[in-house]
Amino acid sequence: MMKLFYSPNACSLATHIALEEAGAEYELVEVNVRTGAHQTPEYLALNPKGKVPALATDQGTLTETPALLAYIAQTHPQAGLAPLDDPFEFARFQGINDYIAGSLHVAYAHIFRGYRWADDEAAIEAMKAKGPSVVAQCLTLIQESMLKGPWLLGDRYSAADAYLYVLGRWAPRAGLGLADFPALAAHAARVEERPAVQRALAQEGLD
Amino acid sequence: MMKLFYSPNACSLATHIALEEAGAEYELVEVNVRTGAHQTPEYLALNPKGKVPALATDQGTLTETPALLAYIAQTHPQAGLAPLDDPFEFARFQGINDYIAGSLHVAYAHIFRGYRWADDEAAIEAMKAKGPSVVAQCLTLIQESMLKGPWLLGDRYSAADAYLYVLGRWAPRAGLGLADFPALAAHAARVEERPAVQRALAQEGLD
Repeated sequence: MMKLFYSPNACSLATHIALEEAGAEYELVEVNVRTGAHQTPEYLALNPKGKVPALATDQGTLTETPALLAYIAQTHPQAGLAPLDDPFEFARFQGINDYIAGSLHVAYAHIFRGYRWADDEAAIEAMKAKGPSVVAQCLTLIQESMLKGPWLLGDRYSAADAYLYVLGRWAPRAGLGLADFPALAAHAARVEERPAVQRALAQEGLD
Repeated sequence: MMKLFYSPNACSLATHIALEEAGAEYELVEVNVRTGAHQTPEYLALNPKGKVPALATDQGTLTETPALLAYIAQTHPQAGLAPLDDPFEFARFQGINDYIAGSLHVAYAHIFRGYRWADDEAAIEAMKAKGPSVVAQCLTLIQESMLKGPWLLGDRYSAADAYLYVLGRWAPRAGLGLADFPALAAHAARVEERPAVQRALAQEGLD
């Protein structure tokens, strides 16, 4: 059976939601990044990146949210989590996930984990200061140029919607309100209504 | 016909190589980021991110290298640029591309474009100072935990090899030598021998 290594409310929640949407058989394993569980020798042996999510399968361990979302969609095609039969739409789906991972998540990381990119305390503070405006820029771009409505891809819900929802949950920690992004706020409310999302939130002990 | 919007030696070179490997019909359009061509109103109308690569297709414009590499592989299956028939191997392929995009490329960007994440000049310098060690850490992880050899996925070449090659080309600009990463240096030499790679380099005016 697959095992999802996750930390509560981390980006791993997107993969968790996708597994719930897919009706997949899997086990949840908490690796709480707040207590440093992601840096133990045991976890590093499984995932040398020392991050969540990691998905252990019978064939080996996979990482990186965009890759995991596509994997779950491909292995559970009946769930319709990605446009698998149309390479262009699939690339749109992936392009959104890649932007969330490589730009939006990275922008947040400068607020929470600036030490990754500078040793100097003042520099870390400077990243923290600019961070919210960089996050806001990413959210604006997503709202204006990616969100077709009601879902990111238009009429069809996909795992990208769950991923965007998860990173939208972090906005208050960046001092931002999703209310400043009305289309994103409405989108998040739609995602949150889904039973699979409610199950994943409850399993992670989140509101 | 597809159009690839690229800047010489930028990460767009990976998509360029993939198009050459695929024998795709496409046109190259230079958008030189050194002259600011990526920030013109015309280009921003095509790609609001103001970055390369962008791939204009009959159905619309696509962005993000991992998405583009999967798209070219899926639309030119005879070229064997990705393990399309095996979701696990495809997720490995994608996970490598996602790591290159979201960690290695991001690490380089702190050396070249720190202003994205801080306004303060000293902070930008602090990122520049730490950058090479962050890049080195990413290259070490790729060498030790991703590169099966002779190619990233083992016996089969894939578009991920081209992507890694392209970001390896930047190492000297980060003050690093690929020689410190012997398996990566040997891998880069193998990639560079490929006729499609030679064509793409020549078309971009690169050695």
